[in-house]
Amino acid sequence: MSAAHRTFLLPGEQVEFEKTITAADVDMFAKITGDYDPVHVDGAYAAKTAFGRRIAHGALVMGLLSAASATISRWSVERGAAGTPVSAGYDRIRFVRPVFIGGTLTARYVVEEVDDAAGRTRSRLEITNQDSAVCLVGTHILAWVVA
Amino acid sequence: MSAAHRTFLLPGEQVEFEKTITAADVDMFAKITGDYDPVHVDGAYAAKTAFGRRIAHGALVMGLLSAASATISRWSVERGAAGTPVSAGYDRIRFVRPVFIGGTLTARYVVEEVDDAAGRTRSRLEITNQDSAVCLVGTHILAWVVA
Repeated sequence: MSAAHRTFLLPGEQVEFEKTITAADVDMFAKITGDYDPVHVDGAYAAKTAFGRRIAHGALVMGLLSAASATISRWSVERGAAGTPVSAGYDRIRFVRPVFIGGTLTARYVVEEVDDAAGRTRSRLEITNQDSAVCLVGTHILAWVVA
Repeated sequence: MSAAHRTFLLPGEQVEFEKTITAADVDMFAKITGDYDPVHVDGAYAAKTAFGRRIAHGALVMGLLSAASATISRWSVERGAAGTPVSAGYDRIRFVRPVFIGGTLTARYVVEEVDDAAGRTRSRLEITNQDSAVCLVGTHILAWVVA
């Protein structure tokens, strides 16, 4: 095992992060990223779509999982990791239900595989809404980068 | 073919979207999503990591591809699509290089597969920085949702 890449994490460790998505969040995300798709930012347009109202950007919703992974990263560093844990990628992200403005989301991040030699973890992602309906599923990879 | 799901897109169509990532973008993304990982928001902490300075959140960088896909969606609607194109998912996203504050990114979105019966496209994603170095690769799925 390369001690330099040790993650100090264990399979089964998990973090939940809850947040209500506001209209300001969606408008600000559009401004930051340049994604002004009217289904996200134009209520009159969105009302005429199958959704009936504005929906949050997928990448904004993914940000809540990023927040959950930040807690996992902090645990790793506090426990003595030499490397810096950073996002290495996402696999098979699926937006299975739209997220509406005012929706309260719970992002769940569950470590599933830990590779302390390579400095990598794979974690299961799930976001549910205020009705406990699943909005997003997927997998996230964290990698420990050493100077 | 279900006319309801027709995408009006063709394999090979592509969009490029360019943006410079500012410190304000990263700080605002942290505020919106709750991801205050110090490697993103704390310059003093980031200086001591392998990166040497603050890096942008992966989900923020993905937002530029969301902006590119919004242009593709607009083309589809302007050409007569009955359904609303929305993000259905991402496959095999890999952050192959860090994105620093001040970096100017080019997000390239290339439609590769079009399924007009199902109302689905798969597109190749690539983000390069100001030195033409690849920072992100992956695949995006758009789905046409009918009322």
